[in-house]
Amino acid sequence: MNLFKFIEAVGVFAFALSGLVEARRRDMDLVGLFVVALVAAFGGGTLRDLLLDRTPLFWIEHDSYAIAILGLSTIFALLPVTGRFPPVVLLIADALGLGLFSVAGAGYALEAGTSLFIAALMGTITGTFGGVIRDVLCNELPSLFQQTPLYATCAFAGCYFYFLLTHLALPGELAVWITTFGITAFRLAAVRWNWVLPVSRH
Amino acid sequence: MNLFKFIEAVGVFAFALSGLVEARRRDMDLVGLFVVALVAAFGGGTLRDLLLDRTPLFWIEHDSYAIAILGLSTIFALLPVTGRFPPVVLLIADALGLGLFSVAGAGYALEAGTSLFIAALMGTITGTFGGVIRDVLCNELPSLFQQTPLYATCAFAGCYFYFLLTHLALPGELAVWITTFGITAFRLAAVRWNWVLPVSRH
Amino acid sequence: MNLFKFIEAVGVFAFALSGLVEARRRDMDLVGLFVVALVAAFGGGTLRDLLLDRTPLFWIEHDSYAIAILGLSTIFALLPVTGRFPPVVLLIADALGLGLFSVAGAGYALEAGTSLFIAALMGTITGTFGGVIRDVLCNELPSLFQQTPLYATCAFAGCYFYFLLTHLALPGELAVWITTFGITAFRLAAVRWNWVLPVSRH
Repeated sequence: MNLFKFIEAVGVFAFALSGLVEARRRDMDLVGLFVVALVAAFGGGTLRDLLLDRTPLFWIEHDSYAIAILGLSTIFALLPVTGRFPPVVLLIADALGLGLFSVAGAGYALEAGTSLFIAALMGTITGTFGGVIRDVLCNELPSLFQQTPLYATCAFAGCYFYFLLTHLALPGELAVWITTFGITAFRLAAVRWNWVLPVSRH
Repeated sequence: MNLFKFIEAVGVFAFALSGLVEARRRDMDLVGLFVVALVAAFGGGTLRDLLLDRTPLFWIEHDSYAIAILGLSTIFALLPVTGRFPPVVLLIADALGLGLFSVAGAGYALEAGTSLFIAALMGTITGTFGGVIRDVLCNELPSLFQQTPLYATCAFAGCYFYFLLTHLALPGELAVWITTFGITAFRLAAVRWNWVLPVSRH
Repeated sequence: MNLFKFIEAVGVFAFALSGLVEARRRDMDLVGLFVVALVAAFGGGTLRDLLLDRTPLFWIEHDSYAIAILGLSTIFALLPVTGRFPPVVLLIADALGLGLFSVAGAGYALEAGTSLFIAALMGTITGTFGGVIRDVLCNELPSLFQQTPLYATCAFAGCYFYFLLTHLALPGELAVWITTFGITAFRLAAVRWNWVLPVSRH
């Protein structure tokens, strides 16, 4: 499970970084940096677990991620590090996090006995709602809801692809990996070729 | 229980429509339309259930409403349908939803063993907080908190009226219906004659 | 335990007042005043209990605080009372609430079996997140995240000070009191001498 742990860490830190960048843009102090980063990293999974009544929460039971995010926030608060991360690296890390979190979230929902549609929704919430709560705390219209390259759509479609793979009796771990990288590739392609959902004019 | 299911559907769709209209006003894409509509429809009941620790959540156990709202959101995303609903129809449907959701929410709270005051509060939350979370996600000051025609007040007073009716030993279902239509009529009268709560000047 | 009940009441009303003042500034009606005051007073403890899966919620089981806040909100809605409270009194009451809520929240977290770091985080959430949700409902960037005199930092450091005192085998109640007044003094000193966390420039 080393690859799983590695991608999990990549996803958590990519999401936390997205929070740190937003918080820095608003001149927040360490408290704001830490809270927004923590929410961006674990908000989606936390909302999913509250909705499904799963306990205990991952970041409460395993506090090393929260401690690491506090350390990262301290660095951001003290040093002018913003902008030092090449955008393409952030984009790939975020897309990996989106892929892994979404498929993991859908799996937890199925374990809790939901329908496929609700499981796909919970997977998508896991992958995307940290960013929504981050934007709400930063007093912004959530970027997830705006006409930007496909993000939630990649997660949602990916969850159904995962159900198809498991229906075809693929070994569970293999299905998780194929889906994780499938969602990641779908997201990166959406950014590369600017795939957006249509918005009808008023 | 056919009338109950009918009014429930009317309320859910009226609340979802309120979300779709707000989301369209901000040029959100399908993801935004769907999330804001779902939150407007089920946010109040979800918050009540989280606060009372009731599980599983209605819209998670019965996914047909969520699927229908996705369908409705898709129509809104593709077609220029906003504004095609006569405001008076939306107003009546919303008032019916407010009435039914509030009395149902108060009933669930009493089942969970709360005091009458808390039950009235939970009923009001059920009927009104979908709109509050909708407005927060749309980065707006919640309209519920502003000096607009009575809305939460109709729900709160209606819940106490419901407690009175059941105290008078009316059959439960009859009390639900009288209260639902009572709250609806109260709300419509408040809009018609512009009844507002006083706000003292600074 | 009379002093405990007294400080608890002082803290609840100080937090509720902070909500009422914010809500009045936005010309909210009674509904807005009450909701924002209730959220400011109990939002932090409610979030902590949802995250730790503790039930029932304090303000739901004991409804006298909620009723009292409704009464206070009614006074604010009808009379031009804003600004009648000397700022220094509000500041001290708020600092007392911060101290007591934080140490109590950390204690509940430890009871629920969390690590020290998570317990300090839960204590800080208890003391500070009512204000964050208040600001989000008022469509403001949360003041907690901005470069203002130390607030969350006092709570977080105070929680670790509390763990140290109990580790030194001080009687539980004594440790609670020393910490409560310690956090209060720390907060007041931070305001007096304008202690802020550093923010690196871009």
